[in-house]
Amino acid sequence: MPDPDLQRSRYESLTRSVRRLIDVTIRSDADLEAVARANRLVDEAVAELSTQLNPGSFGVRTSPDGDNLAWGNVVMGLRNAIAPPVEVITDPTGRAHADVVLGAAYEGPPGLVHGGVCALLLDHVLSAVAHRPDQPAVTGTLSVRFLRPTRLGGLRVEAWTDRHDGAKTFAQGHIVDPDGTPTVVAEAVFIRPRTAG
Amino acid sequence: MPDPDLQRSRYESLTRSVRRLIDVTIRSDADLEAVARANRLVDEAVAELSTQLNPGSFGVRTSPDGDNLAWGNVVMGLRNAIAPPVEVITDPTGRAHADVVLGAAYEGPPGLVHGGVCALLLDHVLSAVAHRPDQPAVTGTLSVRFLRPTRLGGLRVEAWTDRHDGAKTFAQGHIVDPDGTPTVVAEAVFIRPRTAG
Repeated sequence: MPDPDLQRSRYESLTRSVRRLIDVTIRSDADLEAVARANRLVDEAVAELSTQLNPGSFGVRTSPDGDNLAWGNVVMGLRNAIAPPVEVITDPTGRAHADVVLGAAYEGPPGLVHGGVCALLLDHVLSAVAHRPDQPAVTGTLSVRFLRPTRLGGLRVEAWTDRHDGAKTFAQGHIVDPDGTPTVVAEAVFIRPRTAG
Repeated sequence: MPDPDLQRSRYESLTRSVRRLIDVTIRSDADLEAVARANRLVDEAVAELSTQLNPGSFGVRTSPDGDNLAWGNVVMGLRNAIAPPVEVITDPTGRAHADVVLGAAYEGPPGLVHGGVCALLLDHVLSAVAHRPDQPAVTGTLSVRFLRPTRLGGLRVEAWTDRHDGAKTFAQGHIVDPDGTPTVVAEAVFIRPRTAG
């Protein structure tokens, strides 16, 4: 078994490099010969990693310390280069927030974050306030209202619980720009499946 | 100026390779020396592409033929490795659909598509039925209801116009699994800003 800390740091470093690669693949103005050379290097990297491949997705694995590792998650995964990544901080009152910087790779309209990416981030952070240890909640509905354009760059996503009603948790949240102005607001209903005991 | 067709094919090939790299970065079980070698190759590829970089995002550029190129778009961009990519087909009646295959990189719960990714895809395909040439619509609200888990793999996203009311277009849509069963349904209101004339 490889050393877990070394494994984490090697994959974290690789994923950071792949995130930079995604960004410069969009923003490069290099000549087409350089693009072809980059392509060959990427294909070599794919071959190095593909000598042994997990046939399925990453799922959620357990570390030697018993932690849940969602390294493949599209929003927060340490090994998922699509993930900005988003680190959700929850405080004792149950509020959650995440600071995130979105570059060229998250663009919809020119210079703006894709509206669906706003929905993706809100879904993720709102669900964090509904989850309880050993009692995961599933999203029932998500409603998003777009108040104004969300510019690429630094953003904060915030969420809080509005109320509980039986197995349902009603959560609210928003995305705020660097001036603190909300650009998108959201409401979601989460359902906590009944468990024995 | 480079040949536009060559430019398109070089970038399309590079982006496909980066998509494979994202996938195997998640699924690799190779030894950590191979991971380190892959990391160095990725860094070399980043350096090749970074000799000349566009300072901003890609935006929407115009091809020599006058076509709009949204190559940076996070859902459909030819140069965006985050994009599956989604190609939306609209028919003469105004319905739209997209067939997409989502691999390990779009995971939320184990083996399932992240709920926020479902919202992202629905936002994108629903907006396609609201847009008219030279009269783009902006999303006002998006509401998504999760009926059942959406498994990673092949999916179809469909959207249609429910009704128009002044500057507003009400669109509906869903994601269906390979059996044709809807897993997520959505409604959205799009607003077409008034234009002179």
